Amino acid sequence: MNVTVGRRTQHYRTVAFDARKNAVRLIDQRLLPHKFQIIATRNFQETAGAIDEMTVRGAGAIGATAAYGLAQGARAFRGRDLEKFSRHVDSVYQKLQAARPTAVDPVNAMNEVRSRMSQGGTVAERQDLALAAAEAFANDDVSHCEAIGRQGGPLIRDGMRILTHCNAGWLAFVDVGTATAPLYAAQAAGRKFHVFCDETRPRSQGATLTAWELAQQGIAHDIIADNAAGHLLQRGEIDLIIVGSDRTLGRTGEVANKIGTYTKAVLAERHNVPFYVAIPLSTIDWKLSFGRDIPIEERDESEVLGAWGAVASSNVRVSGARFGRRVYVRVANPSSGARNPGFDVTPAELITGIITPAGIFKPKELWVNRLKLGYRG
Amino acid sequence: MNVTVGRRTQHYRTVAFDARKNAVRLIDQRLLPHKFQIIATRNFQETAGAIDEMTVRGAGAIGATAAYGLAQGARAFRGRDLEKFSRHVDSVYQKLQAARPTAVDPVNAMNEVRSRMSQGGTVAERQDLALAAAEAFANDDVSHCEAIGRQGGPLIRDGMRILTHCNAGWLAFVDVGTATAPLYAAQAAGRKFHVFCDETRPRSQGATLTAWELAQQGIAHDIIADNAAGHLLQRGEIDLIIVGSDRTLGRTGEVANKIGTYTKAVLAERHNVPFYVAIPLSTIDWKLSFGRDIPIEERDESEVLGAWGAVASSNVRVSGARFGRRVYVRVANPSSGARNPGFDVTPAELITGIITPAGIFKPKELWVNRLKLGYRG
Repeated sequence: MNVTVGRRTQHYRTVAFDARKNAVRLIDQRLLPHKFQIIATRNFQETAGAIDEMTVRGAGAIGATAAYGLAQGARAFRGRDLEKFSRHVDSVYQKLQAARPTAVDPVNAMNEVRSRMSQGGTVAERQDLALAAAEAFANDDVSHCEAIGRQGGPLIRDGMRILTHCNAGWLAFVDVGTATAPLYAAQAAGRKFHVFCDETRPRSQGATLTAWELAQQGIAHDIIADNAAGHLLQRGEIDLIIVGSDRTLGRTGEVANKIGTYTKAVLAERHNVPFYVAIPLSTIDWKLSFGRDIPIEERDESEVLGAWGAVASSNVRVSGARFGRRVYVRVANPSSGARNPGFDVTPAELITGIITPAGIFKPKELWVNRLKLGYRG
Repeated sequence: MNVTVGRRTQHYRTVAFDARKNAVRLIDQRLLPHKFQIIATRNFQETAGAIDEMTVRGAGAIGATAAYGLAQGARAFRGRDLEKFSRHVDSVYQKLQAARPTAVDPVNAMNEVRSRMSQGGTVAERQDLALAAAEAFANDDVSHCEAIGRQGGPLIRDGMRILTHCNAGWLAFVDVGTATAPLYAAQAAGRKFHVFCDETRPRSQGATLTAWELAQQGIAHDIIADNAAGHLLQRGEIDLIIVGSDRTLGRTGEVANKIGTYTKAVLAERHNVPFYVAIPLSTIDWKLSFGRDIPIEERDESEVLGAWGAVASSNVRVSGARFGRRVYVRVANPSSGARNPGFDVTPAELITGIITPAGIFKPKELWVNRLKLGYRG
């Protein structure tokens, strides 16, 4: 999407490849929203490091980064020995996989690249096919998100006020995003609307990443404390909720997403406000039969006990002040601990519809439409 | 309640009076939870300043501070001229009232002091009566909270897991607190239980003040992100919710409290978990007939856009690190704004019971029990 630095507005993808320099170009998401910077990894080890250190995050974005990283590693090989090349590619694969061992997207993405490479006869052919496959993976990610935008865009009518949670935006994918895709499509269609971004404690991806995205695209928005959504719904100030999903159960329509999503769905039902989940097909889990079997990661308590932010140059003048160095501050009582479940599961009956690139479905209808939705028995 | 500094455990009130030095002694709540410090205001101007600068906060605590401040100002008067004394007391009253102009507690508290003073014949008598009245106000505040503890304590059974929101603890009153009173009573009765403290963004009073209180009293607890309560309720990990209230409508049973309270009540209903509100009688509003008429303060957006905390001495070692200077960090995207409603209104049908010093009532039963609850036509 567009990013304005100084007076210059330019289109960026979250992840891209520089074939001449054999480098993966990434938006450094650790610096956002306080600084916009592109880094170029010079080799697959650096690319793995960028995944490991959260320079890049989000399902689609780390998938594409791993795909590019595998191509980058393959292209760095010198020689014609197919067996040595194959062993080299294996070690690149291992390294990239180990950078985020619990994620499924890098594995799926790299498997696509590897399968395409195997069609080449020589090392050089396989190197070219690796890059072509990685580019195809990234482009597919973008087209899936664009398709979500085409499906979901019409839900957003002029004057609507829409609530989002966390960041399922273009920064989490190669471009466009999932939960944000309908917003960008509606904006492109000339509609005016207002977005409330849940700050999404404890990691505040709504306040940092989604708000930054919307500001860059010129979409009107306000950040709210996660506590405030109930009040705004009660006062009739929210018309629609759209969130993303980390895993959607194809058999039941249950949705695992960032902690707090379930709460918004419960509130939406009470106030008869439509609650939509936007997903790429790759996040549908066709195997699990019970949402309660989805493992919920308990994350580090330091996330809840404090916050990362930029220090104001003056502690007195907060608004309009300039902000400098990014630091962690301990907010909570120093002798207290925290519980920090990272995700929760929203049951199907609270979800109005699931927006996919192939159409909008009732959660319970995913299974009967499974062939359309990429199920491969 | 008890505070341990170093190895020494001592009982403190949030607000107390040093008659010899004519000083109001306050726990400096701006420094908590990172530092425990008592300040002594030397004159009523400094006492007003402490209210103004949030050194002391919370309904009961600022009421008692204003009462003591009025006595402090009255006692500083030199001379026997009743008319001059009366003008002096008026100016003290004005100054203390202006320190927190929207609050009703300082006004009520000072009116009690002034009414008692008028029973004295001489300046010296009135000065003595002022202090006696202020002490009586503070002691009443404590006995009301203790009575809430006696009423609500039996709700807490061995092994329960209890959710709290914000701080309606002893720091918000002279001692004991309201929402915390049943916890302290159950602890005194030897019961074991676990408390989850909502961090309560944006001002994080749960993570800072309530967690500090519970840690000082040795009550087992964990801080959670406001987003996490829904998940814990869904998994059956919360048995009871107790919150405080800023204003409870005697005619309808609606409860205005810190933003996010309503959301917890909605979740509690869905999961059949009892939701109690603990209140002193002074917060019942017998006039308003509609919760929607309660004015909801829209607070400064900087609260949502960032956080106050102590900087770690090392940014790398977060856990176990020592924390120093308290600073504001900007978490959110610098070019985004925020909405920041400070309170929300919970309807009567979501409230299991209202714990008062005079008993536990269904919200709709406040009105029929109004004479018992201090209603004065």
